[in-house]
Amino acid sequence: MPTDPAALTAALVKCPSVTPEEGGALQLLEATLGAAGFDCTRVDRNGTPNLFARWGAKGAEKTFGFNGHTDVVPVGDEGAWTHPPFSAHLEEGWLYGRGATDMKSGVAAFAAAAMDFVKDTPPDGAIILTITGDEEGPGRDGTIAILDWMEQAGERMDVCIVGEPTCPEVIGDMIKIGRRGSMTAHFEVIGKQGHSAYLHKTLNPMPAVALLAHRLSGHTLDRGTDHFDPSTLSVTTIDTGNPASNVIPARTRMTVNLRFNDLHTGASLTDWLRAEADKVAEETGTRIEMRPHISGEAFLTPPGDLSDLVSGAVAKATNRQPVLSTTGGTSDARFVKSHCPVVEFGLVGHRMHEVDERVWVQDIHDLKRIYTQILTDYFTG
Amino acid sequence: MPTDPAALTAALVKCPSVTPEEGGALQLLEATLGAAGFDCTRVDRNGTPNLFARWGAKGAEKTFGFNGHTDVVPVGDEGAWTHPPFSAHLEEGWLYGRGATDMKSGVAAFAAAAMDFVKDTPPDGAIILTITGDEEGPGRDGTIAILDWMEQAGERMDVCIVGEPTCPEVIGDMIKIGRRGSMTAHFEVIGKQGHSAYLHKTLNPMPAVALLAHRLSGHTLDRGTDHFDPSTLSVTTIDTGNPASNVIPARTRMTVNLRFNDLHTGASLTDWLRAEADKVAEETGTRIEMRPHISGEAFLTPPGDLSDLVSGAVAKATNRQPVLSTTGGTSDARFVKSHCPVVEFGLVGHRMHEVDERVWVQDIHDLKRIYTQILTDYFTG
Ligand SMILES: [Zn+2]
Ligand SMILES: [Zn+2]
Repeated sequence: MPTDPAALTAALVKCPSVTPEEGGALQLLEATLGAAGFDCTRVDRNGTPNLFARWGAKGAEKTFGFNGHTDVVPVGDEGAWTHPPFSAHLEEGWLYGRGATDMKSGVAAFAAAAMDFVKDTPPDGAIILTITGDEEGPGRDGTIAILDWMEQAGERMDVCIVGEPTCPEVIGDMIKIGRRGSMTAHFEVIGKQGHSAYLHKTLNPMPAVALLAHRLSGHTLDRGTDHFDPSTLSVTTIDTGNPASNVIPARTRMTVNLRFNDLHTGASLTDWLRAEADKVAEETGTRIEMRPHISGEAFLTPPGDLSDLVSGAVAKATNRQPVLSTTGGTSDARFVKSHCPVVEFGLVGHRMHEVDERVWVQDIHDLKRIYTQILTDYFTG
Repeated sequence: MPTDPAALTAALVKCPSVTPEEGGALQLLEATLGAAGFDCTRVDRNGTPNLFARWGAKGAEKTFGFNGHTDVVPVGDEGAWTHPPFSAHLEEGWLYGRGATDMKSGVAAFAAAAMDFVKDTPPDGAIILTITGDEEGPGRDGTIAILDWMEQAGERMDVCIVGEPTCPEVIGDMIKIGRRGSMTAHFEVIGKQGHSAYLHKTLNPMPAVALLAHRLSGHTLDRGTDHFDPSTLSVTTIDTGNPASNVIPARTRMTVNLRFNDLHTGASLTDWLRAEADKVAEETGTRIEMRPHISGEAFLTPPGDLSDLVSGAVAKATNRQPVLSTTGGTSDARFVKSHCPVVEFGLVGHRMHEVDERVWVQDIHDLKRIYTQILTDYFTG
């Protein structure tokens, strides 16, 4: 009897695995995959739960990988949910719950596809599932920890699919072949406090922060590439906290967020931001401190074997030709890309991170079917 | 026996008249002036205490006015004071206390000068003292209330001296013949919130606020006049309060403070600010709300009879030729100027509004002497 990916999704949704809680989700998968013949290893690091599962021989000639996460974002206003967020309530074809689309259904679909595939048509190769309990949190000890462990243990994936939701409208309409990088920089502009009636004794940091914000906002980082949208910079906040309108403040803070394509790196943008801040500091006589934080580098798996494999399988299973995209936020594909070619393919993200997150149950079955087709094509193609 | 202005200052400093508290200060003056033959009227309005005192006939041919205040700013960190702030402690020629220079000594000096003058050389005219208990607070019911009441009561000053501290270094070195106006404008720039990875669904208000701050800061309002420094505009705060660096905020706030000379009015600057905001709103697609608050209009009593009178008296009494200035913050002269020609002349402002505020006792005697000379020259000149 085939594994029901919707039932597995429901069982996972019932695990209250709000990041960083394991909530029983990885335990459930470990037991289920273990019973299906997968060799399971918990590779927790610094309290973050992670699961590595392999069917087939270590070091097999062909090894196909999946990656996903079982942690979910907080439920928000629980009273605003139509159904309790961990009830996995079924209604009119929808399965409700926190994590229903992001991404317990994706994990359930690739786990179900893999378990049935190795039972029905045991491949000449291996299938590896890497599943973390921290993608929604800081992620410092999540997928990256599994990959570190694999490196040391001599484990390898030849290609990998991350099962995050990728489809804007209907299942099969989009594959992500890369993601923009993301970084944040915190600035502090420092002048000299004083009374606004005696400006000659002061140095107002506000014109400096305005100039820096204006220049950074107005700068064109690039015009995009064949595969990427243009990089963007957003000033997300300026905060001074000066309640006295007759006082010139001593300092003010500003944060900018950048989403960048593969024409840039976190380091190149850090250098550029520092240079712009230095120019403004020199022009205004202020001092400007900067603290950069790089969340992830841009990456691209150029259209080729892997995207062809996934597109072809999607087309066979759904009659749709998926768009190859690099839009959206970051995902753990930014870690996997250093290990092997990676693309992302999954469901439509209905109300991800919102109240009344839900998944169309038929989509879970379709996703399992597509993943199965991918495995078939990969091992027999 | 002449009235001791230092003793009167000490008695006033002992009244804890932190704005809006009367603290016994106006009661003390009312009793003292009443005993000296002044006709005293309390013209309190909305709980703000005010004192009107006239010697001589109502509607006299020549009427000389003084204006001052008995309220003081809060003591701040009381433990940091060398002597308790309401003790009027005398040490090595200094009298310590909150209000010692701003401006209980000024009030004591003109009250003592007036009382002795009318006793020693009764003039053919009248002397009016207008003393408020709210100059340091909002001031909505202070000097302006006394002037409103005078208008209704048919009382009139022909000229007026405001006894605020005016001298930067030594007594007699500066007279203020005008003050810049002051206004504040609060802006709110409104865009559309969203995720920084999906900018097309957002409208970031931050570039708009940066542009507006940049344009306003960079604008030259004027290059000053014969009597005034150039007008200034200071952005004093920008506050967004967006803690999430991956979120574009919906709105942000900014405050600007303007100090302006008599080439402008609060209304003309309001119009200009509104036009600049409208331009930025149109260029950026944001909505910008503005709330102006005009604290005081610029005013000038052009050099002439009154400044000549005061300068001449200062020169006779101190051998110093005072500079005619319009620098500094606002004062109640901004109200008096609508009633009659007004200049400001008073002490050196040692540690005004600070811990260990104090006055050089000899200066109080000198100030009384100068005020007496002014009265003499006015009524006999
Ligand atoms: Zn996710
Ligand atoms: Zn004052």
